Amino acid sequence: MKKQYLEDMSVGQKFGSGSYVVEAGEITAFAAEFDPQPFHLDDQAARDTFFGGLAASGWHTASISSRLLIDSEFQPAGGIVGLSVDELRWKKPVRPGDELRVETEILELRRSRSKPTHGVVKARITTTEQNEEVVQSYVLHLLALHRPEAND
Amino acid sequence: MKKQYLEDMSVGQKFGSGSYVVEAGEITAFAAEFDPQPFHLDDQAARDTFFGGLAASGWHTASISSRLLIDSEFQPAGGIVGLSVDELRWKKPVRPGDELRVETEILELRRSRSKPTHGVVKARITTTEQNEEVVQSYVLHLLALHRPEAND
Repeated sequence: MKKQYLEDMSVGQKFGSGSYVVEAGEITAFAAEFDPQPFHLDDQAARDTFFGGLAASGWHTASISSRLLIDSEFQPAGGIVGLSVDELRWKKPVRPGDELRVETEILELRRSRSKPTHGVVKARITTTEQNEEVVQSYVLHLLALHRPEAND
Repeated sequence: MKKQYLEDMSVGQKFGSGSYVVEAGEITAFAAEFDPQPFHLDDQAARDTFFGGLAASGWHTASISSRLLIDSEFQPAGGIVGLSVDELRWKKPVRPGDELRVETEILELRRSRSKPTHGVVKARITTTEQNEEVVQSYVLHLLALHRPEAND
């Protein structure tokens, strides 16, 4: 896919992704390593908790969303280098069998104050499941490159 | 460790964690699954990038921080159920051999508007490396339980 420079992006532009089905075994394996709490480890133990059944760790949802984003139509030149994340919300638990997709929407583009070759892209990254309900959403600030010709 | 109810927490309170050394092999394994970009996958390929050498994915740093948090002195009754994250900043790349720790500072405590048994804790979660430089910081809103006696 063609790499995108700042000059190729515009506010309101949207980029889709492929999809990924989350399996119960991955939910519990991720949790055992990074978020070992009953509601992420065991469906039976999860029944008596806030979640009412096995649910993926929010950090697992964020990590799967990262993979979908990297493989998506959004291909900034120089890669996706995140500077910061705001408004990260887990709106709905991710359950075994959920099929996730990611959409990127450009919210703002600006020149870097310090680096003339760089700019900053502000984008909303939204993860939905198979019924198009939002499971996660956040605002990402990432570095992007100006098209080299523009600086000659 | 004794589980903490809202009544056991106060603004300004701090909770420490153990430490965790991040190995190069874990950085590249996490990246291969969740953030396959050259600067997270291969030290040689990373040299020509923004990072100047192998660096952990920000989502890996967040996930390791989650594990340190779960095992830390901060032990809310009912577990750590994150509702949202704001101001997530990756201030310094995490490199192979870095030894990470997490500190939780309570910023705000409030009653839940909808659930009388619950409240919301606002806390800053800061991850530092072996030289006490901050590598990551965020503000977490999480559910917490009132001590049951208070509701009798």
